[in-house]
Amino acid sequence: MPGLSFLTPIQDELEQVEHLLRRPPPDTCAAIGEALVHLVDSGGKRIRPALVLLSARLCGAGLERTLFAAAAIEMLHTATLVHDDLIDGATMRRGRSTLNATCSPAVTVLTGDYLFAYAAYLASQTENTRLMRRFAETLMIICQGEVRQMSGGHGGRFSYREYEQRIYAKTASLISLSAEAGAILASSDENVIQAMRLYGKHLGLAFQIVDDVLDFTADEQTLGKPVGSDLRQGLFTLPFLLFIESDPQHPVARRALEGHYTVEAVGASRLSDAAVREAVQAVVESRAIEQAMEIAGRHIEWAKEALGSPALSLFTGDARRDYLAALLELADFVVRRHF
Amino acid sequence: MPGLSFLTPIQDELEQVEHLLRRPPPDTCAAIGEALVHLVDSGGKRIRPALVLLSARLCGAGLERTLFAAAAIEMLHTATLVHDDLIDGATMRRGRSTLNATCSPAVTVLTGDYLFAYAAYLASQTENTRLMRRFAETLMIICQGEVRQMSGGHGGRFSYREYEQRIYAKTASLISLSAEAGAILASSDENVIQAMRLYGKHLGLAFQIVDDVLDFTADEQTLGKPVGSDLRQGLFTLPFLLFIESDPQHPVARRALEGHYTVEAVGASRLSDAAVREAVQAVVESRAIEQAMEIAGRHIEWAKEALGSPALSLFTGDARRDYLAALLELADFVVRRHF
Repeated sequence: MPGLSFLTPIQDELEQVEHLLRRPPPDTCAAIGEALVHLVDSGGKRIRPALVLLSARLCGAGLERTLFAAAAIEMLHTATLVHDDLIDGATMRRGRSTLNATCSPAVTVLTGDYLFAYAAYLASQTENTRLMRRFAETLMIICQGEVRQMSGGHGGRFSYREYEQRIYAKTASLISLSAEAGAILASSDENVIQAMRLYGKHLGLAFQIVDDVLDFTADEQTLGKPVGSDLRQGLFTLPFLLFIESDPQHPVARRALEGHYTVEAVGASRLSDAAVREAVQAVVESRAIEQAMEIAGRHIEWAKEALGSPALSLFTGDARRDYLAALLELADFVVRRHF
Repeated sequence: MPGLSFLTPIQDELEQVEHLLRRPPPDTCAAIGEALVHLVDSGGKRIRPALVLLSARLCGAGLERTLFAAAAIEMLHTATLVHDDLIDGATMRRGRSTLNATCSPAVTVLTGDYLFAYAAYLASQTENTRLMRRFAETLMIICQGEVRQMSGGHGGRFSYREYEQRIYAKTASLISLSAEAGAILASSDENVIQAMRLYGKHLGLAFQIVDDVLDFTADEQTLGKPVGSDLRQGLFTLPFLLFIESDPQHPVARRALEGHYTVEAVGASRLSDAAVREAVQAVVESRAIEQAMEIAGRHIEWAKEALGSPALSLFTGDARRDYLAALLELADFVVRRHF
């Protein structure tokens, strides 16, 4: 993410994380080594490593362990995407082919498993048992959230509360851990750890809401995948929920309420392109996008409030103030971004 | 495993591990909780927890951390089986239905992922970073071994060396870690840790060779799955390799050498029942079974030799001698068992 000023104070460290991510793990075979490089090259915004680095710098954690924590969290994120793409049958991510597009399901499952193990290995290099426990707990939350989503279906259940639980599990839990990680590594005061975790939680919720908005509003070139991909999978996200709520008589909303877009109805065949485009257009033309962005904005305010915690006011000195300012800027960026 | 005398000194602890394995993880949803109980109920020989407990008792590790290590390793083993069964399309294991027999592939993948995370969580409860690192490394070895096996195919490559690498990754690596775990938890001398690891490695190699033999010789009732299941998947194990080597002109061996049984040839359709039974019978009637058991026996001798290491002779006292005797008995049991 060139030109983003909140990355300036951690530019060097981010490059070191990149180097760590590209370094082949001990005793890797060619198949896994190539898959790893392909996945790391497929990029991503590296928002999680940036958070680990900023939080570690703010709280005063040692560099080496911080780099391993940042790489571990990004690797864990990458591993979850490998299995997600397989399950969703996605062939493109960030404009590049997914692993399941070129490998058998068996090899994709096992390579994903390998990446989970490698992420845990990187986490173990921090030699911090609390962080390693939080790491495992977070993966449990992520997987359980997905199992719930799969086995529950979504038909007829449109509560905002459920949506928030789902995106907490999917995204905010790991972003929250990223923000908390630096404070854990620095053995900060419990109040500092909680403040950083809360910041990360609201940041993560906002991040996913914006992702869900972009799935309706972004152009496909920038997104690197087709718009409306959530709906295509029978997944109702915040903009769609708000749209249905505000205009339940709209033909698209009525079809949704009658169960036409649920996972069960969509089944293996998926919705037609025309049906998805019609629904996307209806949402974009409604006030739902604006309302969703307002909710995201509220989470960003809460995230920034968490950084105003008295516990964090103990951090003084110019350098520390720079990291705090960067974390505030990063929060603003999350609702400003278009990719 | 009632009536096995080497379990007597750790009977109570084994029950505590069982209790730990059945305790629902923090904040589990119903779907995952039920899957977990079903998988734990599906039993298994609990040889890995027994090894952790005996090694911990021998080396003098604390009880609570030992119980978590034993549960963590058994959970990791269970998690790998969930994905293996999905990949192999196996519907029965140990006489019970597999998870993929009742759940969708997506839910099976994600539940397996959850179990990996839960295993790592249990491992984190040991608060031992070295054990957690070894835990992650071992899962990397297991997954990489499977990816290699998948992507390499087996056509025309029949070396014993390759077979040994494969079964080390598949089985001996985790059994080795089980034996090593107690010494790590006890912060034993490096020589003790290495001796226990070597014991576990040879024990694990013998264990898998015997498993591979039983896949030819056991009755299906005891095995809980059809005989010849490896061949059905195009997987050549030691008895089959020895059979081909000793009688390459046998019609079955010739077909094998011509590639009729390889993964590529077997494809999605699998071998016919008749073809598998013919091959199984040919192997059983040859000297291959006896030769494979001889090789397993050699590994058991090496395992016992590792326990004779001078490093372990420091352990004196009646209780310690009991644990050492139990580890020796366990080694003998591995080549004596019929299930």
